[in-house]
Amino acid sequence: MNKIITISRQYGSGGREIGAKLAEKLGIPFYDKELITRAAKESGFAEETFENVEKKATNSLLYSIAMGMRIYGNQETGYSHLSLDDQVFLVQSNIIRKVAMEGPCVIVGRGADYILRDIDNLVNIFIWADLEDRIERAIKDYGLEKDKAESEITKMDKGRINYYNYHSGKKWGRADNYHLSIKSNYLGTEDTAELITKFINGEKL
Amino acid sequence: MNKIITISRQYGSGGREIGAKLAEKLGIPFYDKELITRAAKESGFAEETFENVEKKATNSLLYSIAMGMRIYGNQETGYSHLSLDDQVFLVQSNIIRKVAMEGPCVIVGRGADYILRDIDNLVNIFIWADLEDRIERAIKDYGLEKDKAESEITKMDKGRINYYNYHSGKKWGRADNYHLSIKSNYLGTEDTAELITKFINGEKL
Repeated sequence: MNKIITISRQYGSGGREIGAKLAEKLGIPFYDKELITRAAKESGFAEETFENVEKKATNSLLYSIAMGMRIYGNQETGYSHLSLDDQVFLVQSNIIRKVAMEGPCVIVGRGADYILRDIDNLVNIFIWADLEDRIERAIKDYGLEKDKAESEITKMDKGRINYYNYHSGKKWGRADNYHLSIKSNYLGTEDTAELITKFINGEKL
Repeated sequence: MNKIITISRQYGSGGREIGAKLAEKLGIPFYDKELITRAAKESGFAEETFENVEKKATNSLLYSIAMGMRIYGNQETGYSHLSLDDQVFLVQSNIIRKVAMEGPCVIVGRGADYILRDIDNLVNIFIWADLEDRIERAIKDYGLEKDKAESEITKMDKGRINYYNYHSGKKWGRADNYHLSIKSNYLGTEDTAELITKFINGEKL
C-alpha cells in the first residue's frame, strides 16, 4: 500500500472518525488538527488563525471580498503580499505536501485533495450522511445544543464549501472529484472504514 | 437482500456493465434498454421517441425552452396536456415504479434515483471514470471514431445532466445524491461490481 488518502466530509458525517479508523487499519499516519498545530508551530502563526479560516468562509460573497481586500499580515512567511487567509492556505498547502512526501497517510479536510492533485498515488474519499444522522452526531460528539445543531451544521458546511471552492476553483462535493464517495450511515462508521480499506487494497477483493 | 438499486453513470464509464454484473452477483433483474422497450410497447409510443429524449437534452437552455413549449402529442397516454418529452418522462416513471414494486432489481439511468426517491429500500450508485478511460471504452465498446469520441462523450453527458436536472430539479453527479459513488477505473469493472455487492450486503463485511 503506497497511497496518500484524503478525506473530505460533511460536518457531522463521521468522516474524521472514519479517517482515523482507516489510518489504523492501514497502519499509516493520520493528520487532522494535528496537522494544523504542526503548521501553526512551524510557520509562526497563532493556532487560532488557522481555526478561524473556515469559520470566516461561511458567506461565499463576503469571503471573496475579504480575500480581495488582501489584509497584509505576517511578514515571516514570505507571503506578505497576500491576505492573511491566503497566507494560511499556502502555509497549510506546504505542510500537506510535506507530510505527503513522507509516505502513505490519511489527511482529513483542508482541501488536501486539491492541494495534492498532481500526486500519482492519491486516493480521494468523500463522506456524507443524512441530516438527521449528522444532527445526532453533532449533539452527541461535539456537544451542540439540540435546537442549534441544524443551523450550526449548515454554517459549518457552508464554510467548508466556500473555503474549498474559493481556493481550488472546483466544486466541493461533486462525485467525480473523489475516487469513492460514501453515505456513512448506510453501513455505519466501522464498516464504512472497512469498505474503504477494501477499496484501497483492491487486490484483496 | 431487499434493495432497489439505481445506477447513474457518466457515458463510457462502464456503469451499464457494472450494473449488469451487480444484478448477476445479487441474482436480481437488470433493467436498461429493456426497460425502455417495455415502456414503449406498453404505452404505445414508438421506441425511437424514448431514445431521442436524452439526445434532445444536450443543450440545457434549448431543452427548457422546448419543454416550456409543450408540443401537444400522443393522446393515448392521458398526459396529452404535456409536452411529448414530459409525457415520455411520466410514462417511463410509471414503468420504473412498476418494476420496483415487483421486487429487488438494478435499474440503470433514466433518473430512477429521483423517480424512486420515496422508496425506503433504495440504494443509489454513481459510476464515473477518467476521460481517457471513457474515450477508450467508447471506441472499443460503442464503436465511436477516435477523433470524435471526446466530443461525443461530452454531448452524451450533457444530455444526461440536462435531462436529469430538468426533470428532478436536483443536480446530477453530486456525491450526496448517492449512497456510493465510485471511479470505475480504479479497481476495474469486475472488482467495482464486487465492492458494490459488498456495500449492499453490508452484513458480510
